[in-house]
Amino acid sequence: MEPYLQEFHPPARLLLGPGPSNVSPRVLQAMTAPVLGYLDPHFARVMDDIRAMLRLVFQTGNRLTLPVSGTGSAGMEAALGNVLEPGDTLVVGVNGFFGERLTQIGERCGARVVQVQAPWGRPLDPEAVAAELRKNKRVKAVAVVHAETSTGVLNPVQEVARVAREHDALTIVDAVTSLGGIEVAVDQWGVDVSFSCSQKCLGCPPGLAPITLGPRAEEVLGQRKTPPHSWYLDLNLTQRYWSQNLSYHHTPPTSMLYGLREGLRAILEEGLQARFRRHWRNGAALHAGLEALGLGLFAQQGYRLPVLTSVRIPDGLNDDKVRSALLNEYNIEIGRGQGAMAGKIWRIGLMGENSRPSAVFSLLSALEQVLPREGFEVAKGESVAAAQRVLAEGDGSVAK
Amino acid sequence: MEPYLQEFHPPARLLLGPGPSNVSPRVLQAMTAPVLGYLDPHFARVMDDIRAMLRLVFQTGNRLTLPVSGTGSAGMEAALGNVLEPGDTLVVGVNGFFGERLTQIGERCGARVVQVQAPWGRPLDPEAVAAELRKNKRVKAVAVVHAETSTGVLNPVQEVARVAREHDALTIVDAVTSLGGIEVAVDQWGVDVSFSCSQKCLGCPPGLAPITLGPRAEEVLGQRKTPPHSWYLDLNLTQRYWSQNLSYHHTPPTSMLYGLREGLRAILEEGLQARFRRHWRNGAALHAGLEALGLGLFAQQGYRLPVLTSVRIPDGLNDDKVRSALLNEYNIEIGRGQGAMAGKIWRIGLMGENSRPSAVFSLLSALEQVLPREGFEVAKGESVAAAQRVLAEGDGSVAK
Repeated sequence: MEPYLQEFHPPARLLLGPGPSNVSPRVLQAMTAPVLGYLDPHFARVMDDIRAMLRLVFQTGNRLTLPVSGTGSAGMEAALGNVLEPGDTLVVGVNGFFGERLTQIGERCGARVVQVQAPWGRPLDPEAVAAELRKNKRVKAVAVVHAETSTGVLNPVQEVARVAREHDALTIVDAVTSLGGIEVAVDQWGVDVSFSCSQKCLGCPPGLAPITLGPRAEEVLGQRKTPPHSWYLDLNLTQRYWSQNLSYHHTPPTSMLYGLREGLRAILEEGLQARFRRHWRNGAALHAGLEALGLGLFAQQGYRLPVLTSVRIPDGLNDDKVRSALLNEYNIEIGRGQGAMAGKIWRIGLMGENSRPSAVFSLLSALEQVLPREGFEVAKGESVAAAQRVLAEGDGSVAK
Repeated sequence: MEPYLQEFHPPARLLLGPGPSNVSPRVLQAMTAPVLGYLDPHFARVMDDIRAMLRLVFQTGNRLTLPVSGTGSAGMEAALGNVLEPGDTLVVGVNGFFGERLTQIGERCGARVVQVQAPWGRPLDPEAVAAELRKNKRVKAVAVVHAETSTGVLNPVQEVARVAREHDALTIVDAVTSLGGIEVAVDQWGVDVSFSCSQKCLGCPPGLAPITLGPRAEEVLGQRKTPPHSWYLDLNLTQRYWSQNLSYHHTPPTSMLYGLREGLRAILEEGLQARFRRHWRNGAALHAGLEALGLGLFAQQGYRLPVLTSVRIPDGLNDDKVRSALLNEYNIEIGRGQGAMAGKIWRIGLMGENSRPSAVFSLLSALEQVLPREGFEVAKGESVAAAQRVLAEGDGSVAK
């Protein structure tokens, strides 16, 4: 029998890579609800609920807040493609793989892209962004990655948004890895456009890209001289459907939206601030445990994400063999390095459901078994003990 | 309590609109399988299986066959955006809403679009396409909708592909409403690019757009002078992930792909030809039943789709009230008219799971109750009897 005719029963992995992360049963269950037509009044309720909850999670009052019908990269393209017109100037902060992606997509929009670089593993310098804003006249927007998934670095988005506003440029924030895990305060920070994905700290399967545009960005949208290149991602068209009149644009991905509704509901039940504390606490425990194993953290201290931790691969260790052993023997997935960091770092995600002590202990214990076999000696038991000590210190002492 | 914090339990509708259609429990169940990372070897199997099955369903050997991570409209944009470059000439057959959409998206790609029109409700004339191909030098592609969802008309795709090839133009076929319900023979018909969606005759929830590109289209892709406007829908990048090397592009929508795999598996278990016969038979039964009710079919005889039937709304009947009564009293959704046909026709889908006698009988029986109340008299029982007679005639006598 052909393989495709057989049943498929995937193993239950602990997904500690850069995403997707594990999805809670309640979200998967919600996705099995009967599909509704896109004009059904009951479906309108799903849309209303999602928009209301996305505003809470983005911490914004923005009218134009909705999930784009694609993955996080579609959200990035929607953000840039709706704001930029050919010939516009875009300043992009680049200290990792996704800063480069912002650049590439910005260029496909026909924009002149000016990069403000920082080394991978270090945060962006808002002062360097300000310098480019002084140098380049009429910059349309500044785009920056909040949580750089390729390096585990937290960028100072709030400060970048401040300097952008001083120079009358919009701020576009990639919150793909941060939203729902660490604070993203769109209105308070003065962010004009932000987008994310469903499969990381929001705890849903991949396939949707929440996006929000503030009044200044909506004004830019309304004053475009040319339509966006992409009809599918044209927010002027999409929002007509998502707003009250349900004007048909494209058929929304019903089951994914059921799942997103349930994932957002779980977030609000937990409470945003409690959820952020949980992510910071477990991230700190992981960091302590990895250092107790003798591994070095890649991201600069003070700018380390709790949701995505980058670890230097010790000299002589075989990247593939360690990750394969974790996957095949322990059912644990961790991420490989991207781009220039391939073979040099691992990327460990603690996102949504998976930001919990048991996930931290499982990974550290498995590494204690696997690393020595590959030639890297560790002191047994110390990593879990170190993580436990951090967790015992409780919420208050975990430095953000 | 805020509505969004409450549980959501949608009613179980019989979805007889233009899609989404009802999804079988086995597909919804498959979507609840544990999420895997996009580099997991078990996930690579899902991808291989999907590509193998999509080739069987598109009836093609095309290497570049994969599901785009978006809805059918994203498939349309991927098809046009990868083939067309600014300044190219595109001939579009337009006899409905989706021909117009091909035009709009073609224009966003920077193409010069030449329309070949036919009245809504009538098929396109391949000879008229040939005339435009003679008139316009160096036409890059001809785009045509196979099953026009806005009118219920089946367009003569095979003939259009033949004249396009004679003029050295690519043929792009929108198979959104046809794939999996009626024959789409990509290789035999000489179609270069075809795309579809997951939520109609493939029997899955909305969110994926299967696409296939033949050798001539791949050559065009390889010889582009400029990259496609859309990075997200750039098939040169996407196929690198979907082919063997798993080069990261964007995170694929895991759960949706599990569902698509299961939906395709169900199709192959049934058998393509048996499935097409089922769709034609139930479509014919519906047509007979509607005519027995005294309603007029909108699409020209001989070109009526079995999967999407357009019905003229009799003078004096209130469109909204009839559809609302069907929805609220009988849990049956039918589609309203689009664009110029709003208020003038209803659109009734019999797709995938829903192409079955019981769905036909349910709708006809409900219409027998609702129409007289709104002032349109019908002979009770005759419509179901007419449908039953067609079904009793068996496969052989159903005209395609």
